[in-house]
Amino acid sequence: MYIILVYDIGERRVGKMLKLCRQYLNWIQNSVFEGSLTPSKLRELKFEAKKIMDEEHDSIIIFTSNNEDWLKKEVMGREKNELDTFL
Amino acid sequence: MYIILVYDIGERRVGKMLKLCRQYLNWIQNSVFEGSLTPSKLRELKFEAKKIMDEEHDSIIIFTSNNEDWLKKEVMGREKNELDTFL
Repeated sequence: MYIILVYDIGERRVGKMLKLCRQYLNWIQNSVFEGSLTPSKLRELKFEAKKIMDEEHDSIIIFTSNNEDWLKKEVMGREKNELDTFL
Repeated sequence: MYIILVYDIGERRVGKMLKLCRQYLNWIQNSVFEGSLTPSKLRELKFEAKKIMDEEHDSIIIFTSNNEDWLKKEVMGREKNELDTFL
């Protein structure tokens, strides 16, 4: 499955969440990740994310599509991946 | 067309960009918007966004799908829309 994950996570938890998401997906913008995951890997990611997040204050939105070709992606401006290697 | 728009915009320009994007789409998280737009409305939004953004520092990623049903959305934690009315 093709995944887009966006998060809004409190400062004290965001580092952990970033690290987790990067284990499963590609970081494409400040708080945006994409990639392909099997349903069981996605369940695993959600399970781990729940342990980190504060569900009263934080938010994660996950878009899933069965076929990557059904979504077109266009980037305007700077491409995050250029910086990614420095982090 | 169904649209997901995510931005990473410098502090000095973000207010303007937020206002622009909310004219076209629904604000669903900190820097994430979704909605349906005709191709010509999307062109208009991109044209206006280019005028606001600094293409060296800012980034906008637009995902488009021809059919909203091809994407499943799941929200974990807080729903932004609850707060939206206060802003």
